[in-house]
Amino acid sequence: METLKVGVIGLRIGRQHLKNFEECPEAEVVALCDIDEARLEELLKERPGIKGFTDYNKMLKMRELQAVSVALPNYLHCPVTLAALKAGKHVLCEKPMAMNAAEAEQMKSTAEGLGLTLMMRFNMRFGATGATLKPLIEAGVLGEVYHVTTTYTRRDGYPKPGGWFGQKSKSGGGPLIDLGVHRIDLALWLIGYPKPVSAMGNVYDLLARRKLAGVDFDCEDFAAAMIRFETGCTMYVTASWDGHQPVRRELSMRIYGTEGSVFERDGQLTLCRKEHGVPTVSTLDQQKPTETEQDHFVRCVLEGLQPGPTAEHGVIVMKILDAIYESAQTGREARIR
Amino acid sequence: METLKVGVIGLRIGRQHLKNFEECPEAEVVALCDIDEARLEELLKERPGIKGFTDYNKMLKMRELQAVSVALPNYLHCPVTLAALKAGKHVLCEKPMAMNAAEAEQMKSTAEGLGLTLMMRFNMRFGATGATLKPLIEAGVLGEVYHVTTTYTRRDGYPKPGGWFGQKSKSGGGPLIDLGVHRIDLALWLIGYPKPVSAMGNVYDLLARRKLAGVDFDCEDFAAAMIRFETGCTMYVTASWDGHQPVRRELSMRIYGTEGSVFERDGQLTLCRKEHGVPTVSTLDQQKPTETEQDHFVRCVLEGLQPGPTAEHGVIVMKILDAIYESAQTGREARIR
Amino acid sequence: METLKVGVIGLRIGRQHLKNFEECPEAEVVALCDIDEARLEELLKERPGIKGFTDYNKMLKMRELQAVSVALPNYLHCPVTLAALKAGKHVLCEKPMAMNAAEAEQMKSTAEGLGLTLMMRFNMRFGATGATLKPLIEAGVLGEVYHVTTTYTRRDGYPKPGGWFGQKSKSGGGPLIDLGVHRIDLALWLIGYPKPVSAMGNVYDLLARRKLAGVDFDCEDFAAAMIRFETGCTMYVTASWDGHQPVRRELSMRIYGTEGSVFERDGQLTLCRKEHGVPTVSTLDQQKPTETEQDHFVRCVLEGLQPGPTAEHGVIVMKILDAIYESAQTGREARIR
Amino acid sequence: METLKVGVIGLRIGRQHLKNFEECPEAEVVALCDIDEARLEELLKERPGIKGFTDYNKMLKMRELQAVSVALPNYLHCPVTLAALKAGKHVLCEKPMAMNAAEAEQMKSTAEGLGLTLMMRFNMRFGATGATLKPLIEAGVLGEVYHVTTTYTRRDGYPKPGGWFGQKSKSGGGPLIDLGVHRIDLALWLIGYPKPVSAMGNVYDLLARRKLAGVDFDCEDFAAAMIRFETGCTMYVTASWDGHQPVRRELSMRIYGTEGSVFERDGQLTLCRKEHGVPTVSTLDQQKPTETEQDHFVRCVLEGLQPGPTAEHGVIVMKILDAIYESAQTGREARIR
Amino acid sequence: METLKVGVIGLRIGRQHLKNFEECPEAEVVALCDIDEARLEELLKERPGIKGFTDYNKMLKMRELQAVSVALPNYLHCPVTLAALKAGKHVLCEKPMAMNAAEAEQMKSTAEGLGLTLMMRFNMRFGATGATLKPLIEAGVLGEVYHVTTTYTRRDGYPKPGGWFGQKSKSGGGPLIDLGVHRIDLALWLIGYPKPVSAMGNVYDLLARRKLAGVDFDCEDFAAAMIRFETGCTMYVTASWDGHQPVRRELSMRIYGTEGSVFERDGQLTLCRKEHGVPTVSTLDQQKPTETEQDHFVRCVLEGLQPGPTAEHGVIVMKILDAIYESAQTGREARIR
Amino acid sequence: METLKVGVIGLRIGRQHLKNFEECPEAEVVALCDIDEARLEELLKERPGIKGFTDYNKMLKMRELQAVSVALPNYLHCPVTLAALKAGKHVLCEKPMAMNAAEAEQMKSTAEGLGLTLMMRFNMRFGATGATLKPLIEAGVLGEVYHVTTTYTRRDGYPKPGGWFGQKSKSGGGPLIDLGVHRIDLALWLIGYPKPVSAMGNVYDLLARRKLAGVDFDCEDFAAAMIRFETGCTMYVTASWDGHQPVRRELSMRIYGTEGSVFERDGQLTLCRKEHGVPTVSTLDQQKPTETEQDHFVRCVLEGLQPGPTAEHGVIVMKILDAIYESAQTGREARIR
Repeated sequence: METLKVGVIGLRIGRQHLKNFEECPEAEVVALCDIDEARLEELLKERPGIKGFTDYNKMLKMRELQAVSVALPNYLHCPVTLAALKAGKHVLCEKPMAMNAAEAEQMKSTAEGLGLTLMMRFNMRFGATGATLKPLIEAGVLGEVYHVTTTYTRRDGYPKPGGWFGQKSKSGGGPLIDLGVHRIDLALWLIGYPKPVSAMGNVYDLLARRKLAGVDFDCEDFAAAMIRFETGCTMYVTASWDGHQPVRRELSMRIYGTEGSVFERDGQLTLCRKEHGVPTVSTLDQQKPTETEQDHFVRCVLEGLQPGPTAEHGVIVMKILDAIYESAQTGREARIR
Repeated sequence: METLKVGVIGLRIGRQHLKNFEECPEAEVVALCDIDEARLEELLKERPGIKGFTDYNKMLKMRELQAVSVALPNYLHCPVTLAALKAGKHVLCEKPMAMNAAEAEQMKSTAEGLGLTLMMRFNMRFGATGATLKPLIEAGVLGEVYHVTTTYTRRDGYPKPGGWFGQKSKSGGGPLIDLGVHRIDLALWLIGYPKPVSAMGNVYDLLARRKLAGVDFDCEDFAAAMIRFETGCTMYVTASWDGHQPVRRELSMRIYGTEGSVFERDGQLTLCRKEHGVPTVSTLDQQKPTETEQDHFVRCVLEGLQPGPTAEHGVIVMKILDAIYESAQTGREARIR
Repeated sequence: METLKVGVIGLRIGRQHLKNFEECPEAEVVALCDIDEARLEELLKERPGIKGFTDYNKMLKMRELQAVSVALPNYLHCPVTLAALKAGKHVLCEKPMAMNAAEAEQMKSTAEGLGLTLMMRFNMRFGATGATLKPLIEAGVLGEVYHVTTTYTRRDGYPKPGGWFGQKSKSGGGPLIDLGVHRIDLALWLIGYPKPVSAMGNVYDLLARRKLAGVDFDCEDFAAAMIRFETGCTMYVTASWDGHQPVRRELSMRIYGTEGSVFERDGQLTLCRKEHGVPTVSTLDQQKPTETEQDHFVRCVLEGLQPGPTAEHGVIVMKILDAIYESAQTGREARIR
Repeated sequence: METLKVGVIGLRIGRQHLKNFEECPEAEVVALCDIDEARLEELLKERPGIKGFTDYNKMLKMRELQAVSVALPNYLHCPVTLAALKAGKHVLCEKPMAMNAAEAEQMKSTAEGLGLTLMMRFNMRFGATGATLKPLIEAGVLGEVYHVTTTYTRRDGYPKPGGWFGQKSKSGGGPLIDLGVHRIDLALWLIGYPKPVSAMGNVYDLLARRKLAGVDFDCEDFAAAMIRFETGCTMYVTASWDGHQPVRRELSMRIYGTEGSVFERDGQLTLCRKEHGVPTVSTLDQQKPTETEQDHFVRCVLEGLQPGPTAEHGVIVMKILDAIYESAQTGREARIR
Repeated sequence: METLKVGVIGLRIGRQHLKNFEECPEAEVVALCDIDEARLEELLKERPGIKGFTDYNKMLKMRELQAVSVALPNYLHCPVTLAALKAGKHVLCEKPMAMNAAEAEQMKSTAEGLGLTLMMRFNMRFGATGATLKPLIEAGVLGEVYHVTTTYTRRDGYPKPGGWFGQKSKSGGGPLIDLGVHRIDLALWLIGYPKPVSAMGNVYDLLARRKLAGVDFDCEDFAAAMIRFETGCTMYVTASWDGHQPVRRELSMRIYGTEGSVFERDGQLTLCRKEHGVPTVSTLDQQKPTETEQDHFVRCVLEGLQPGPTAEHGVIVMKILDAIYESAQTGREARIR
Repeated sequence: METLKVGVIGLRIGRQHLKNFEECPEAEVVALCDIDEARLEELLKERPGIKGFTDYNKMLKMRELQAVSVALPNYLHCPVTLAALKAGKHVLCEKPMAMNAAEAEQMKSTAEGLGLTLMMRFNMRFGATGATLKPLIEAGVLGEVYHVTTTYTRRDGYPKPGGWFGQKSKSGGGPLIDLGVHRIDLALWLIGYPKPVSAMGNVYDLLARRKLAGVDFDCEDFAAAMIRFETGCTMYVTASWDGHQPVRRELSMRIYGTEGSVFERDGQLTLCRKEHGVPTVSTLDQQKPTETEQDHFVRCVLEGLQPGPTAEHGVIVMKILDAIYESAQTGREARIR
C-alpha cells in the first residue's frame, strides 16, 4: 500500500492532527514542527523515527515530506500555507482558512496554480451529525431548503485569557471566526453550498468588557447575523464565548425545507415531515463516521481526488465572516461578491 | 362609577372584544356592528338594550357612543378608524394597525390632532408572559439587552383557505403581519421599544404554493428577518402558517442581556443569570395578568391616560413589517426611518 | 339530500349508535326498540317524532324503516339480524358478529342472497389509530408484513358481574370475543386481511374463579393465541378482563414488515424504518377520523357501496375465535377453513 | 482447598470461560485448545504454566485434566462433548446444547452412563435478572404461572457475515437457536421447567435475503412461536438478528401468575400484585449474582452436586427449538415428546 | 330505610357538609343556620322544605332535628357543640376540635355524659390516601412504626387577610391549628394513635410580619415541631401558610417501620420494603374511598357505632397543638398528660 | 515556596488524607503511621523518602514533622490529638471530633493553650454543595434563616459488621455520630453557626437488632432529632445506616429563610425566592471547590490563619450529639450549655 509522508506544523491543536494521522494506515508522519522546543521534544521522544523542527521553513525543505498540516494561530494560516505550497507540499489547513477572504483567495489560487491539494480542516463534517444527515439530505428528504439557523454558544467559555485567541490581530475575531466558522461550513455543506450574496449582523463585547478588564482582549464575545443566498435561502447564525444561557454549551441547527425540516440540538437529530398526509417526527439514529478528516485528506491526495472541504468552501466561509464583521462595523448590510 | 359607552365593529374576532367589555365593570356596550345580519342578530337577541348596525357609518352617528373597537379585516383598519376618530370616538384597533406604515401614521396623527385615544390591541402584552416578565425586566434583571429572537410558527396552520387572510390586498401579508406582529410588539415592549433602523429578511410561499393550488392565496407562508436597532441591539424574528416542525405551534422568545437572559418556550419562562458568581437557571412562576386589554383601554380613556400599546408603537411595528416585506422583494436590506 | 331511515334495536350500547346516527346528516332515526320500557321511554320523550317498540318484530314491520342497528347481547346478533334482513332492512351489527362462525356465515349468505348491506360495527377502524396508520400502510411504508402482535388487557376490568357478558351461553366467551375481536379486526384490516389457516392458544379463568366465586360466570378471564396465515405471516394475540399489570388497561400492537415496523401503545404510534441507511424512529401525529362507523354505514347503503367492515370480515374473525376456543379445549392447534 | 483442574476448548467465546475460571479460587486452568495457533499463542504467552493444544483429542489425554469447557461452534458441541466425557472429563458445554435434541439426548445419556457432570452454560441464569427474580418467584409471589412472553430481538445485529453463525449446517439455525435459547431457558428456569407438549410458529429471512445477498447465509433472521406446556401454561417467544425496532437490542419478558406478574425490560424489573386489595406496582432492586456459571460448575463438580442448568434442561430446550423449526417448515403445530 | 334528620350550623365550609349530607341516602337535611341572612336565603330558596335560622339556639329547639354539623369559626366550636349536645343533638364538629385541649375535654365529657355521638370532621381520613394506606398498614406491611414526618406547607397561601383565621383569639393559631391538625390526625390514625408524651418546636411569623403589615393578623405563618410518643416513636411535623418553596402547596408524609416505609408526596404513595431479600419500591394504586365523613357520621349514629374520628382523637390532637404552642413560647419542651 | 511537613496517623481513611496532601503543592508528607504493618509497607514502598511508624508516639518525636492528620477510630481522636499537640504538632482531626463534648473541649483548650492549629476535617464543607451555597447565602439571598432540615440516610448501609464502627465504646454511636455529624456541621456552617440551646430526639436499633443478631453491635441504626438555637431557629436532623427507603443513600437539606429557601437533594440545589413579586425556582450550577480540606489546613497553618472548621465548631457539634443521645435515653429534652 502506498503511503503519504506527512508533517504537522504547530503542536497544540496539531496534536490531534498527529494522532489522527497515526491512526490512518495510509499516512506516515515524518516530521513535526513547533517553536516551543519542550513541547516538540515531549512528542518526539516517543516517536524515534520522526524529525523535529522549530522552524517550519527548514522542515519544508525535507524532500520526502509530501504534505503538511498547518495547525497554527489564525494569522499564520496564510503565510505558512503559502510557504508549504511553494515548497511543493499538499496542505491540510486548520479553520478558519485565514484572517480574511483576500488571504484565503491567495491561498486557493496558489494551490490551484501549483496543482496541489489544499483542504480545509472543517472537522464537524466528519462527526456523527454530518454522517447521519448528509445521506438523508442528499437523498432529498428535505426537498428545497429555504431557511437555516445555526448556533454555537458557550456560557463563560472564553479561550485562555491573554492568549492569541482574544487578540484580533492574531485571531481575526472572536467566537464568530472561532466557533461560527464550524457551524456555517457544516450547514452550507449539508444544503449544497449555495452562493451567499449579503450579510447583516452585529457583534458585541458587553460581557467580556466587564469580565476581562485588564486582559489583552479586543474580540467580540457574541455575534448574530443573517445571511442571504442567491437562491433566496436565508441563514441565521449566532456564536458566543459567553452569555447567560441554561447550559454551558449549546450547539443547534435547524434546516427548513419543502419536504422536511431537520432540528439538531447538541447532537440529537429530529426530522419532521408530512408523509402520506401524516405529520411524522423522526428521531435519527446517530451514524458513526467512516473516516476522519485526516483519513479523507490522505485518501484524496493519494487518489488524486478533490477533497470535500475545498479551498473554495474555505473562501466562501471567509467572505461570509468578512461581511458579518463589516456589517457590524458599518451598521449596514454588507454585500458579498 | 363613571362608565364608558362602547361599540364593537366587526363581530368575528370582535366577539372576544365584546366579551371582555362585558366583563369590565367600567364599560357599557351600547352598539354592535357587522355586515353579516345573521351574525349580528344572534348576538343582539341575548342583549336587549344594545343597538345593532350593518353600516358602521350609521353607528358612528350615535351620540352617546364614546368609543369603538375596530375588529375588521386588516384593510379596513385604517378607513374605519379614521371615520370613528372623525366622529369623535376613541378607538381600540385590532392588530396589525393597518396595511402599511403610511396608513398607520395617518391614523396616529388624526387621533393626536383630535385629542382622542387610539390604542392598539396588542393583547399578548396582557397575557401571563408579559405579566411575569415585565416587572422583572423593569427591575433590571437583564441589564442591557443586546439580542432578541422571537418566533411564532405553525404547522399546517393556515387561516380558513379562500378567506381574506390569504389575499394580500386585504390582509397586507401572511403570517408575518398576522402572527409576527404580536411577537414583535411583545418583545419590543419588554425591552423598552428601541428605535429600529433597518431590516433584512425574506418571505417564502413554497409550501403554500403546493398545498393551496387553486385557492385565492398570494401571501407568504414563512418569513424570517433580522432587525437592527439604533442601540446596536438586533432581533431575529420568524413567523409561519406552515412548515415542517415537531409541534403544531411554536411560540418562543429569547432576550439576551448583560445581567441575564430570558428564554420563553410556549409560555414556560426561564431566567438565566450569574448571581454572586454562581450561574442560576430560574423557572418563573406564571403571574396572572391584572387587566385585559379592554379593561386597560377603558381605564385609560376614563382617566385620561396614555394606554400602554400606543399608536406610536403601532406605527413602529408597521415600519418594521414594511421593511421586511421590502427587503424580501429587493433582496437587500431596507432602512427604517 | 336523500336520507336513510334507520332504527336501533337494543339501547344500552345502542345509545351510542343512536347518538352517532343523530349527528349524521344523511340519517334519520325513525324507530327505537328495547325490551326495557323505562329505558325506551326515557329516550323517546326527548324525541317526539320517533316510534318506540319493545318487540323488534313489530318494529321490523315499519314500511319506511330502511335499515337497523343491532345492538343486543351477542346471542341475539344472529336471530335478530336474520329477522331484519328477511324484513328487507339493511343491518349494522355490533361485534362480535355472532356466537360462532356457523351463525356468522348464515347471516352473511342471507344478506348476500337478499342483496342487502350487512356491515360489522368494528368501530376501532374508525378511531385515530386506524385513521393514522391506514394511509401509511397502504402507501407501503411497512413493505411485506410478516409478524403481528395485538393486545387488549385490563386489570380488574370485568363487565358487570352477574350480567350476560359472563355467561358463555349468551356471550360466546370472555375477553377474547369481547375485546380481542376488536384488536384482531383492526390488525387484519391494517395488513389487508390475509387468510388465516390455523390457531393455537389457551384460555384461563384462574383469577376469575377466585374473585367471582358465587357469581354466574363461566367465561375465560385471559386468552393468548398464535394465528398463522396463508402468507406465512403469524399473529400473537392476548385479551383479558383481569390480570396483574402496571396499568388498568393496555392496548398495544406491533406490526413487523420488511420496510418498517409499527409499534402502537395506548394510541401512541411509532414507526421504525431504515431510510437511506439511517435507522429512524418516527412518532406519528394522530389523525382525526373523517367519519364514524354510522356515517360510513349510511353512506355505503345510500351510495350502493360495499362497506369497509364486511360480513366477510366478520366471518373470518369468528373463524379465528372459534379456532382459538377449540385449541384451548383440545390442547392442540385448530385448523381454519 | 481442593481445586478443579480445567481446560477450555475453543478460545473465542472461550476467552470468557477462561477469564471466569481464572477468577474462581477453586479452579486451576491447566490446558487451552484452539485450532488457530496465533490465538492460542497470544493467550499462552501470558500464562506460563498452561499447556496449549490445537487438537482437542490430544488435550483430552492429559491425566490431570479433570474438566473441560466446550466453547466451539454449535455443530461441534456434541462430538467434542462426547469425546471429553469418554476421556473421563466433566463438561461445561456452551449453549445451544447441540444441533438438535437427538444429539443432546446422546450427550445427556453418555454423561449419566459415565457418572460425569455435564452442565449447560445458560449464563443468563447467573445474571442480575435471575438473581433478583428467582428468590421472589420461589417464595411464591407470582402464585400459579399461566402465561409467559420472552423476547430477544436485535436491529441489524447479525453475527459476522460469512462466519459459521449464518450457516445452518454449522449453527443449527439463526437467532432462535442463538439468542432465543437463552431466553427460553431463563423463563423456564424461573417458572420451574414445566414439560412442553407442543409448539407452533414460523421463521423468516425476508430482511436477511436482501441485506446479505451474496453472503453464505441460510438461517432465519426472525422467529416467533407459541409453546404449550403440560400444565396448560403457554409461552410466546421471539428472537431476531434484524428487524425494524426503536432500539438496537430489546430484551423483555413477562410472566403472568395468579398472585402477581413480572415485567422485565432490558433488565428493569417490575412486579405487579394486588396486596390487601390495593394494586401495587413494584420496582425491584437489581441483586448482584453470587456466583458465575463457572464458579457454579466448579463447585458442583467438587461437591458432587447436580448443577442448576442440567443436561436435562438442555435437552428440553433443544426439543422446543426442534419443534419450532419443524412447525415453521410444515406450517403446522409440532408435538413434543 | 331509617334516615337521620340533620342540620348544619355555619354555611361557609358548611356548604360542603350540606352537599355531602344531600348525597347521603340515609340523611335528611331539615335545618340550616347562618348569621348572614343573604347566604342563608341563597341556599334555602332552592331547598323548599328546609327551615332556616340565623340563631342556632332557636334551631336547636327543633324537635325532629337529631344531629347537627358545627361548621363555624374555631372559637365557636366549643360553645355551640355544648349547646347542641345539651339540646340532645348528635354533633359532627369541624376541625380543630376547639381552641385548646381544656375546651375539647369538656366537649368530650359532655357528649359521653349524655350518651350522644360527637365526631370530629377529620376529612383527610376519608380521602384516597387514607383509603389506600389504611388496609395495608392494618395488614402489617410496615411492621413496628418508629418515626413519622408529616408536612402541609403553602407558598403565599394565607386565608383571606383580615378574616378570623388570622386572629388568634378566634382561630387559636395559624397554619398549625388550621392545616397541621389534618396531617397530625391522619398520621396518628394510620399508625394507631399512640399516646403523645411531649412536644418541642417553634412557630414563626417572619414573612407574615412583612407582608401583612397593617392587617389584623397575630398568628404564626410557619410551625415546626417534634413530638414524642409513649412507644418511643417520634413525629416531625411542619405546617405553613407561607414560605419560599418550589410548589404552591406541599403535602407529604413519611412513615418508617421495621417491615416497610411509606412515602407520600401530594397523593403519590410509595411503599418501600425488603421482600425475600430484594428491596422493592412499590407505587400504590390510589383507592377510591367508600364513604364520605358525613356518610360515616350518619351511619354511626343510626347504627349506634363509635365513629372513627372520635372525640378522644380530637382531644389528643388538641393536646399536641397546645404543647407545640407552649414549647414555642417557653423555648422548652412541653410535656403532654 | 515554604512547605509544611506533615504526617498521617491511621491509613484507612487516612489514605485519602495522604492523597490530598500529596496533591497539595505546599505540603510535604514526611511520615506515615499505622499499627497494621502490611498496610503501612504497601504505601511506603512507592514513597521512598517517607518514614513509616507503627507507634504514633515514636512518629511524634520526629523534629521536622510540623503537623499531623489524625485518621483513627473515633475513641482515639482525643488521646492521639492531645499527644500530637503536646509534641508541638498542628493537628487535622477526622470527624467526629471525639467521643463526647468533654473530650472535645479538652482538645480545644489544649490547642489554644499551646498556640497550635487544631482543625476539624468536616470535608463536606469542601464539596460542591458548600462551594455553591456559601457565597450565595453569605450574600444574603436567604435573608434570616428560621428552620433547617438535614438528612443522611442509607438503606442497608452498615459499615463492615463486627468492626469498631458498630461498637459504641469505640465509635461513640452509630449513624448520628458517623453521618449526621457531617450534615449538622455543613448546615450550621452555611447559616453561620448559631448557638444551640437544646435538643430532643430518639435513636432506634429495630432493624439492626434483627439483621445483625450475633454481631458485636450496640449502636443505633436510625436517629431523629430537633435542635433549637438561641436565635429561635430550629433544625430537624435524621441519619441512618439502615431503613426502608427508595434509594440506597439519601442526602438532603432544606434551609428556610425570609428572603429565600434552599432545597438540596443528593447534590441538586434549588433556590426558591420571590423576586420583584414573581416566585422563582432556580437551579444552581454546581461550583467546583477551590481547595481541599488538606489544602485549607496547610494554607492556614503556613499563613497563621484560623481554619474554617475550628475546634470551636467541633465542640458545638459534639455538644449537639451528646444532647441528642441524652434525650434518646431520658425521653426528655436535653439542654445544651
